[in-house]
Amino acid sequence: MELGALIFDVFGTCVDWRGSVAREVAVAIPSVDAFAFADAWRAEYQPAMERIRSGGRGYVALDDLHRENLEIVLDRFGVTCPDPAQLARAWERLAPWPDTVPGLAAMREKRIVAPCSNGSIALMTRLARHAGLPWDCILGAEIARDYKPKPQVYLAACAALRLSPDRVMMVAAHNDDLHAARAAGLRTAFVARPTEHGAGQVTDLEPDAAWDANATDFNALADALP
Amino acid sequence: MELGALIFDVFGTCVDWRGSVAREVAVAIPSVDAFAFADAWRAEYQPAMERIRSGGRGYVALDDLHRENLEIVLDRFGVTCPDPAQLARAWERLAPWPDTVPGLAAMREKRIVAPCSNGSIALMTRLARHAGLPWDCILGAEIARDYKPKPQVYLAACAALRLSPDRVMMVAAHNDDLHAARAAGLRTAFVARPTEHGAGQVTDLEPDAAWDANATDFNALADALP
Repeated sequence: MELGALIFDVFGTCVDWRGSVAREVAVAIPSVDAFAFADAWRAEYQPAMERIRSGGRGYVALDDLHRENLEIVLDRFGVTCPDPAQLARAWERLAPWPDTVPGLAAMREKRIVAPCSNGSIALMTRLARHAGLPWDCILGAEIARDYKPKPQVYLAACAALRLSPDRVMMVAAHNDDLHAARAAGLRTAFVARPTEHGAGQVTDLEPDAAWDANATDFNALADALP
Repeated sequence: MELGALIFDVFGTCVDWRGSVAREVAVAIPSVDAFAFADAWRAEYQPAMERIRSGGRGYVALDDLHRENLEIVLDRFGVTCPDPAQLARAWERLAPWPDTVPGLAAMREKRIVAPCSNGSIALMTRLARHAGLPWDCILGAEIARDYKPKPQVYLAACAALRLSPDRVMMVAAHNDDLHAARAAGLRTAFVARPTEHGAGQVTDLEPDAAWDANATDFNALADALP
């Protein structure tokens, strides 16, 4: 079957969340190590989603989880911040990797492109406007009302496009995202983002399975599409 | 409160469904009056949605309703068509009114813009690619799993953007759409499309209430936005 759409992980794959969040933390809370704070904030992301994935809590948008997690991390660092609601929205103001926007634009010439992120429709919409991400539509956790890597998030994206999973390619810098997408029947493409976690990153430097595509960046992935 | 987003009716307001569908009917079924066929096809639209709005049928995407309604109209006209599935997708290939794309682009410079149509995510996504509609995201019936003018469709669009209804403006060429949006708490803008139903159109030539905005076309509406 012909490929109909590419769907994308966003945090880390399309945008540099760590550097972008750290820049805002450095301004809002000058007394802390901004990268350590950004890492600690992000470390609350999986546990917060896991309570929802496991059924222990109904669906709550990531915007609200980011805001809650910010309070946890402010407490842990023993600091306050003048406008935590404003800082929580740093996740709407993340910078794209240099190849992201031209690569997405080139892919969009050939196929439907959409995020399949754990970010909400509101968050992905505002981030796309900030970063210039040229999506055709916004898919992801909110339309499934659950979080990746639950299979229904990938399947809801395919269903929303009225495409069978074998006609949709998940693009991510994280092998676990691709394992989950493949298990749901989607095609898979790996694009390494070796500095997502900083210069000392040790995870996801290489594909750990034979993904359908393996590209150095989004421009190379666009070139490789039929 | 500051206006945060504009959401749009699409069929008739953004695109000329009647002329576009008639063009495809004329090619697929040369023996019929293409405009009469397009009108008859569109006339099945409200009754098909009403069964869903009233709870007599679960949510079915408009793509499927269009396909079912095509069979009804083919039967009534006593004709066949070589590829009805292909003809049913004529609704993905509608032409925008001349001011739609530049007007939307100008509005998008100022505010979030999104469709709030009864078309599905898939249909709106493909139509946007065809017609060049520069949406920030795709909202509408599918995220509410019900059909306008039910209030939850307008409210689901606001909720997806995390904006209160008084910060969202519904733009439509149909007064009934605006009455429903206003009843749900949204702001309203009327843009007349006096040839949507052809040269003899008698409905929706003028606003029938004091809408928040009343513009001659999308460019004028863009200019009027703060």
